[in-house]
Amino acid sequence: MAVYTEVPDGDLAAFVKAYDIGEVVSCKGIAEGVENSNFLIRTTKGSYILTLYEKRVNRSDLPFFLGLMEHLAAKGLSCPTPIKASDGEALRELCGRPAAIISFLEGMWPRRPTERHCQLLGSAIADLHIKGRDFALKRPNNLSLSGWQTLVANTKDRADEVVPGLAATIEEELAFLEKNWPQGLEIGVIHADLFPDNVFFLGDRLSGLIDFYFACTDFLAYDVAICLNAWCFEQKSEFNVTKARLMIESYAKLRPLSEAELAAMPILARGSALRFLLTRLYDWLNHPPGAFVQPKDPLEYLKKLRFHQQAKSVAAYGL
Amino acid sequence: MAVYTEVPDGDLAAFVKAYDIGEVVSCKGIAEGVENSNFLIRTTKGSYILTLYEKRVNRSDLPFFLGLMEHLAAKGLSCPTPIKASDGEALRELCGRPAAIISFLEGMWPRRPTERHCQLLGSAIADLHIKGRDFALKRPNNLSLSGWQTLVANTKDRADEVVPGLAATIEEELAFLEKNWPQGLEIGVIHADLFPDNVFFLGDRLSGLIDFYFACTDFLAYDVAICLNAWCFEQKSEFNVTKARLMIESYAKLRPLSEAELAAMPILARGSALRFLLTRLYDWLNHPPGAFVQPKDPLEYLKKLRFHQQAKSVAAYGL
Repeated sequence: MAVYTEVPDGDLAAFVKAYDIGEVVSCKGIAEGVENSNFLIRTTKGSYILTLYEKRVNRSDLPFFLGLMEHLAAKGLSCPTPIKASDGEALRELCGRPAAIISFLEGMWPRRPTERHCQLLGSAIADLHIKGRDFALKRPNNLSLSGWQTLVANTKDRADEVVPGLAATIEEELAFLEKNWPQGLEIGVIHADLFPDNVFFLGDRLSGLIDFYFACTDFLAYDVAICLNAWCFEQKSEFNVTKARLMIESYAKLRPLSEAELAAMPILARGSALRFLLTRLYDWLNHPPGAFVQPKDPLEYLKKLRFHQQAKSVAAYGL
Repeated sequence: MAVYTEVPDGDLAAFVKAYDIGEVVSCKGIAEGVENSNFLIRTTKGSYILTLYEKRVNRSDLPFFLGLMEHLAAKGLSCPTPIKASDGEALRELCGRPAAIISFLEGMWPRRPTERHCQLLGSAIADLHIKGRDFALKRPNNLSLSGWQTLVANTKDRADEVVPGLAATIEEELAFLEKNWPQGLEIGVIHADLFPDNVFFLGDRLSGLIDFYFACTDFLAYDVAICLNAWCFEQKSEFNVTKARLMIESYAKLRPLSEAELAAMPILARGSALRFLLTRLYDWLNHPPGAFVQPKDPLEYLKKLRFHQQAKSVAAYGL
């Protein structure tokens, strides 16, 4: 829920003039996304999303993110595509911030994901992985092992404020993952943040994927593990094995998972649970009072981590 | 900046089915407005605003607000109009809250109001007052004298936390206004919250007024006084007498101001400054840490109040 930058109407009109998208007739800040300022703009030609990239996004990563969206959209994946200005550039500047106009994608994200949503999601992840194979740019996942080490260092002194013993649990888990993190799995472009609010549906159809601002180059199967965490737990943190099975099976129909990927799934899911536990914990401990963004509960991911710690094999996920 | 209620996609689709506006293809929470949850929805037939009325809005006031918008829109004022469901009702319920779908208004609110904006605004206020004359419902202004008394009682113990001496300044001002508040001025429907973010422009045209959720029955000239405060001070609180003059003159061309109204303008402006000082002070002292909404600076209105306290007559506003 965020609009960090106010865009004066005159500046907006001037900015939009550099594009062949008509004249702005309306501009509304959108209360979604926590990293950037997003506006839904309507012009005399159509609807678009204007994004101003705020501090948490590294400027040097933007060509990767925008290039990836363009690459995937060109290959027919339903995702927003950056609009180029008349000078051929998609990445420009507005109100002192990097800014881009991207195409508007119809659909709504599911507040209560169903089994069918998970099944459709599985195919979409595989489709993304396949269409991303020949994307030329690389971006290391800075929220994998080395990123977790930094986050642990920056949260361990105060983690027990959230729940006693949390710091020790996290340090043990990190040590385990450092020793057991898989090697040699297929690497490619992953979305890395495919939570329900980044997946749009229209009726019985998945209408598109949005928000590629955590995308990076990492194990493809890790993207599936992230979705196990983000989609397959119910409200009270019970794992819904049917959702997991449907998601993985529909993924594997398009891109078969190797034996090594299947075997690694519990570890990848533990890593993914630790990743969101750590970033949420960091935000929880560091959000300024009066901040626009309500921090998310880190303990939700502690519960998910505990589930994966018990998982002996991919059978825990219904396969 | 606010979306207080999440609307599940299934509930939204069911809600919209009761209207003849097509099927929802997109729904975005809007980061504007501090009282209610607003969503920009697109359907197969067009764009609409969905509003869920939150706690601060009194349910029993909603027929006045929605009826007023309908009345004004029917008379040709450019403002949102409530859409009626197939059962003829505009006010319905969604996610346990009163909810309405209203028409979408093109235009953008000016982040940096110009003299021309103020001139166009003057005519729009007069137009609203004239078209509201035969609106049958009444709603007392609960943010006039009696409301200020309540707010003073609820803030005086802690007002000096914001700036020493503030409590005394406010109590003196309230005593002055109680003695000198005008009587017998023309009464009618006023908007009562015509800040720049509630007035849309498209190029050189005022395209409409929105957010009638403070509208009430009060002195028409008080609406002008509110706009003197909301539009005619520059960033560092200098009063821009040209903006004021243009606004009042264009207002008076459509609805001439009486001698009594002109004479009362400094007092009305003081009352309006006190009203926003008090509500901002209350919010400043009472906003919960981590709230979505950043409270606005009450001291801006202390400076404005000081200006009007010096005003000897309407000549201070350029007339």
